[in-house]
Amino acid sequence: MNTFEAVLKKLEQLHFRNMYQNDFFLTWEKSFEELEAVFTVADSLRYLRSQNISTRLFDSGLGISLFRDNSTRTRFSFASACNLLGLEVQDLDEGKSQIAHGETVRETANMISFMADVIGIRDDMYIGKGNAYMHEVADAVEEGFRKGVLEQRPTLVNLQCDIDHPTQAMADMLHIIHEFGGIENLKGKKIAMTWAYSPSYGKPLSVPQGIIGLMTRMGMDVVLAHPEGYEIMSDVEELAKKQAKESGGSFTKTHSMAEAFKDADIVYPKSWAPYQAMEVRTDLYGKGDMEGIYKLEQELLMQNAQHKDWECTEELMATTKNGKALYMHCLPADISGVSCKEGEVAASVFDRYRDELYKEASFKPYIIAAMIFLAKVGDPVAVLRKLEKERKDRLYK
Amino acid sequence: MNTFEAVLKKLEQLHFRNMYQNDFFLTWEKSFEELEAVFTVADSLRYLRSQNISTRLFDSGLGISLFRDNSTRTRFSFASACNLLGLEVQDLDEGKSQIAHGETVRETANMISFMADVIGIRDDMYIGKGNAYMHEVADAVEEGFRKGVLEQRPTLVNLQCDIDHPTQAMADMLHIIHEFGGIENLKGKKIAMTWAYSPSYGKPLSVPQGIIGLMTRMGMDVVLAHPEGYEIMSDVEELAKKQAKESGGSFTKTHSMAEAFKDADIVYPKSWAPYQAMEVRTDLYGKGDMEGIYKLEQELLMQNAQHKDWECTEELMATTKNGKALYMHCLPADISGVSCKEGEVAASVFDRYRDELYKEASFKPYIIAAMIFLAKVGDPVAVLRKLEKERKDRLYK
Amino acid sequence: MNTFEAVLKKLEQLHFRNMYQNDFFLTWEKSFEELEAVFTVADSLRYLRSQNISTRLFDSGLGISLFRDNSTRTRFSFASACNLLGLEVQDLDEGKSQIAHGETVRETANMISFMADVIGIRDDMYIGKGNAYMHEVADAVEEGFRKGVLEQRPTLVNLQCDIDHPTQAMADMLHIIHEFGGIENLKGKKIAMTWAYSPSYGKPLSVPQGIIGLMTRMGMDVVLAHPEGYEIMSDVEELAKKQAKESGGSFTKTHSMAEAFKDADIVYPKSWAPYQAMEVRTDLYGKGDMEGIYKLEQELLMQNAQHKDWECTEELMATTKNGKALYMHCLPADISGVSCKEGEVAASVFDRYRDELYKEASFKPYIIAAMIFLAKVGDPVAVLRKLEKERKDRLYK
Repeated sequence: MNTFEAVLKKLEQLHFRNMYQNDFFLTWEKSFEELEAVFTVADSLRYLRSQNISTRLFDSGLGISLFRDNSTRTRFSFASACNLLGLEVQDLDEGKSQIAHGETVRETANMISFMADVIGIRDDMYIGKGNAYMHEVADAVEEGFRKGVLEQRPTLVNLQCDIDHPTQAMADMLHIIHEFGGIENLKGKKIAMTWAYSPSYGKPLSVPQGIIGLMTRMGMDVVLAHPEGYEIMSDVEELAKKQAKESGGSFTKTHSMAEAFKDADIVYPKSWAPYQAMEVRTDLYGKGDMEGIYKLEQELLMQNAQHKDWECTEELMATTKNGKALYMHCLPADISGVSCKEGEVAASVFDRYRDELYKEASFKPYIIAAMIFLAKVGDPVAVLRKLEKERKDRLYK
Repeated sequence: MNTFEAVLKKLEQLHFRNMYQNDFFLTWEKSFEELEAVFTVADSLRYLRSQNISTRLFDSGLGISLFRDNSTRTRFSFASACNLLGLEVQDLDEGKSQIAHGETVRETANMISFMADVIGIRDDMYIGKGNAYMHEVADAVEEGFRKGVLEQRPTLVNLQCDIDHPTQAMADMLHIIHEFGGIENLKGKKIAMTWAYSPSYGKPLSVPQGIIGLMTRMGMDVVLAHPEGYEIMSDVEELAKKQAKESGGSFTKTHSMAEAFKDADIVYPKSWAPYQAMEVRTDLYGKGDMEGIYKLEQELLMQNAQHKDWECTEELMATTKNGKALYMHCLPADISGVSCKEGEVAASVFDRYRDELYKEASFKPYIIAAMIFLAKVGDPVAVLRKLEKERKDRLYK
Repeated sequence: MNTFEAVLKKLEQLHFRNMYQNDFFLTWEKSFEELEAVFTVADSLRYLRSQNISTRLFDSGLGISLFRDNSTRTRFSFASACNLLGLEVQDLDEGKSQIAHGETVRETANMISFMADVIGIRDDMYIGKGNAYMHEVADAVEEGFRKGVLEQRPTLVNLQCDIDHPTQAMADMLHIIHEFGGIENLKGKKIAMTWAYSPSYGKPLSVPQGIIGLMTRMGMDVVLAHPEGYEIMSDVEELAKKQAKESGGSFTKTHSMAEAFKDADIVYPKSWAPYQAMEVRTDLYGKGDMEGIYKLEQELLMQNAQHKDWECTEELMATTKNGKALYMHCLPADISGVSCKEGEVAASVFDRYRDELYKEASFKPYIIAAMIFLAKVGDPVAVLRKLEKERKDRLYK
C-alpha cells in the first residue's frame, strides 16, 4: 500500500511527542503539527477499517463517558471510537444537575477509573465550569496513577466544554481538508461562521468558538457574523485574531449575514445563545432559581425571534464563491419547513448538501480515536505500520 | 466431528445467497431454503459454543438496539447474539413516544451507525408503523454505506414489528424441529395457535401472526382460534391460507378453543388484542388522546373478561394428541394463581412444561446470531468449518 | 519472574477445588485457604495488568449486573472486573421496587443468562431477603445449566446483601495484608469496627457485619463499637465470637468509641442503621406503607443526631497505636465540613489517609475478578502461568 506508506512517512516527520500520555482539552493548546498528527492518524484508522483490518489497540480496557446533557450523537461517536480501538464503554450518567466539586470529583474520578484508558466528558452548559471540571478530573486520575491507585493513566478527551468543542471542530476541519484536497489548499479560503435563527433556546457557544479557534490557524479568511447582542467569549475572539495574523489569514467580524456569505468558500450557519445570557444562566442555575431561568428563556426566545431573517437561503448561497460554497453544520440543524417552521437553513439547501453533512459527521469517531491513539501509543508510526502488515481481519472471513 | 460436518454439507446444498448483505424483516419474504439456512447456522453456532469454541466473527464492531418499549428478554437475546459474534451492544433508547420520521430518522440512523454492523429494532406498538419504520432505517443506512458515509453496511434485524415477530417465530420453529426430530417430521402435524385470556391489555399481534405466517410453510395443519372480535391482520390470514396450500398443509379458523386443541400435536395459547382496537389505539396515540386511550383500555379489559374460559387447562391438554401436545409460549405467560388470579394457562400445565419453555426461549439468541451471520459472511460454510478447525477457546484454558 | 512464580507456588499449595463452578455468597462459607486463594489470584491479576499482560479469560461472554439500588462504585468495580477478564457487562435495572419471587425470578434468571458467565447482584436493602434472593437466582441458573437451557453455568457473585458485603470485606482485607506486609503479620493486631455519626439515614449493615465476619478469622483482636440501640445481626456476632476463638484472636463489644480506638492498629469508623429499624423498614416496604417509612426515617435521623460525638477526630486518632492506626472506610465517607456539616470523620484525618483509602478501593475489581477466575478455571495455577508466559499485550505496542 504505497499511499498508506506515504501517509506514515508524513506522520514520521511531525512532532507530537507531547501528546503521549497527555489529554485533549482545547485545539489551541496543541501545536499545528500535533493537530496534523490527529488528522493523519484519523485518516489512517479509517483507511485500515475500510480494508477490514483490525485497529484494536486494546485487548481489554474501559472508555468512560460522562455526559452532563442528553447526547445521542456524541455518545455514539465516543462509543464508536472506543470500540474501534477495543475499549468497552461504560456511561456515568450524572444528569443535568450541577456536579459536586473538590473531594467528590477527585474520589469519583478514581473510583470509576480502575480499568479506564480514556474518559470522555461533555459539559458545555455552564460558563466557566465545563473546562475547569475536566481539568479537575484529569488531575485527579493523573495523581491516582502516580500514587499507584490506578495501573494506567486515563486520557481525558474533551467532548464539548463551555469554551471549545475540539472533536467537532477537528472533524469539521478534516472534512474541509478532504473537500479541498489537502490542508495546504486552505490558505486564503474564506469561511463564514455565522449565527442563524432557531426557534429553540440556549444552544452552546462551543461550536462557533471551536471553529474560529481552529480555522484561524490555517491561513484562512475567517468571518464571524451574528446579530448585535450575540457575542461569543471575547478571549476566543482575541485568540482568533492573533492566530489569523500568525497563519497569514484574517479574522473579521460583521453583523451582516450577507456580508459574511459574499464569496465565501465555506459557510457554517448555526444558532447559539449570547455569551452574556449563558453567564446569567449559569448564575441562576447556581442559585437554583428556576423561575429566573424560565424568564431568561422567554426573553431569549423573543430576542431570537427578531432575527428570523438570519436563515441560510438559496439566495444567500447564490452569493457565495461560484454559488457553490461548502455548506456545513454540526447537526442536527433546524431546517425550515422540516424540523421547524422557520429555522437555520432552507430545506432545499440542506437537501443538496445532505451527503456532505453526513460525511462531515462521519469523521468524528475517527478524530476521537486518533486523539486516544496518540495519547496511548509511544510510537504511532510503528504501530500503524504493524497493524497494516499483520492485516488481522476485523470481520473474520 | 462427523455430525457437524454433516450439517455443513446440508448447508452447502441450500440457496441463501440473497441473505448476504441483506436484512431480515418478515419470514415470508425469505425462501424456505433461506429459513433452513438460519436454522442450520443457529444450530451450528450453538454446537460450537457448547464445545467452548469461539464464534467471534467480529474483532470490533457495534450492535445497535432500538426498543420502542421496555424489553428485558428481547434486549438480552439481542445482546447475547451480538456478544456471541463479538459485537458490543449500544442501546438507543427513544422511549415510547411516537418517533419522528423522514429527515430525523435518516439522519439519526446514519449518526449511530459509523461502526454498526447490525441494528436490531423492536417497534410493535403502532399498527402500520413498526415495519415501515424499520424499512426507513434500513434504507437510510444502505444509502449511507453507498455514499461512503459508513464503512460497512449495517444489517437490520426485526426484533418484533406490528406485522411479524420473526426471531420469536423462528426460535419457536427451531424448538419444534428439535422436539419432533427434524423439519421433515412436521408434515401433517396439527398446531393450535389460540387466543387465551389475560387480565392485561393490548398484547401485540405479532406473535400469532408470526406463528401462522411461518408454520403454514411446513406442511402443518395450522388452526387459529380466538373468540369473536379478536381478529388478527387479514393480510396475514390470506398469506397463511396460500402458504398452507402450497406446502401441502392446511390453515383453518375457529372460535372454539376445544376444537383447536382436539388432537393437536402442538398448542400455543396466548393472549392478544383485537386488530381493530390496535388500529384505533394507533390513531389515538397519533392524536395524543390519552383520555381516549384510557377509555379504550377499559373497554378492552371488559371485553377480555368475557372470555376467561379461554384458559389452557389440564382438561384441554388431555384432549390433545395422546394428551401430550407440546405446550408453547413466548413468555412471560399469565399463569393462573401464580402471576395473576386467572390467566392464560393453569399452573400445573405450565409447571410440567417449564424446561421445554425455557429451551424454546434459549434458541432466540442463536437465531438472531444466525441472521446476522448469514448477512455478514459471504461463505458461511467455509467460515463455520474454519471456526471448528481452529478451535479457538471461548473460555481460555 | 521469580516473585510471580513464588506466588504461583504458594497458590499450588492451597485447597480451593470447591470454588470451581461455584458461587460466592458469604466469606464465612469459604475455607481460609479458599479466601487465601482469592487474595493470591487478585494480586496475580493485578501484577499481570501492571505488566501490560492480557488477563482475558473470555473471548466472548456476558457479565450480568443486577442492582437493587443506585451504585456507581460497585457498578464500576464489577464492570472493571468483567472487562479485565473479557466479559461484556449488561445491566438489568429493576429499580428499588421489591422484586418478584418464585416463578418470575426463576424465569428471568434464565432468560438473561444464555451467554452469562457471571451474575453480580447487589441487594442490601431488605433484611432477610437479599441473600435469599441471590440463592434463588443461583439455583435457577444452576438448574437451567443442568437441563440444557444454558450452555454454561453462570457464577453468582454477591456484590452486597443484607448479611455480608464480601467483595468489600475481601478488598479491605487485601489492603490490610499489603499494609502490614502479609497475612501472617495480622495475628494480635487490634481492629476497631466502630459506628460513626452520619446525617443520612439507613446505611446498610453489611459492611460492619462483613468486617467482623472476616477479620475474626485472622487471629486479630476485633472490637465492635456502637452506641446503644445500634445492634447488628446477632447471628453474625455469634459467628464472630466463634471464629475469633478458633483463630486465636478475640471479639469484644463496647459502647465507647474511645475504648475501641485505644491502641488500635486499624480503625474503621462508619455509620449504619440499627438492625431492628431495618427489620421494621423491610416490613413497611412489604406493606407499601410509605408514610410509616417516612416516620421511621425521621425517628432514625433524630436518634442518629444524639450521637454526633461518634466522629473519627484527630484526638481519637492520637490514642491509637503510636497515633498511627490505619484509617479505613468503604467510601464515600461523610467528612465533617466537606461533604456534610458534621459527619463520620474529621477532614484532616480523611485528608491524611486519602491515598490509602483510594488504594483500599482499588483492590475491589481484582477481588471480584479473582472470585470469577476461581469459579471458571479448573487449574488456576496453570492458566496464570500460561498467561504470564504468553505475555499477550493488553495495550498493543
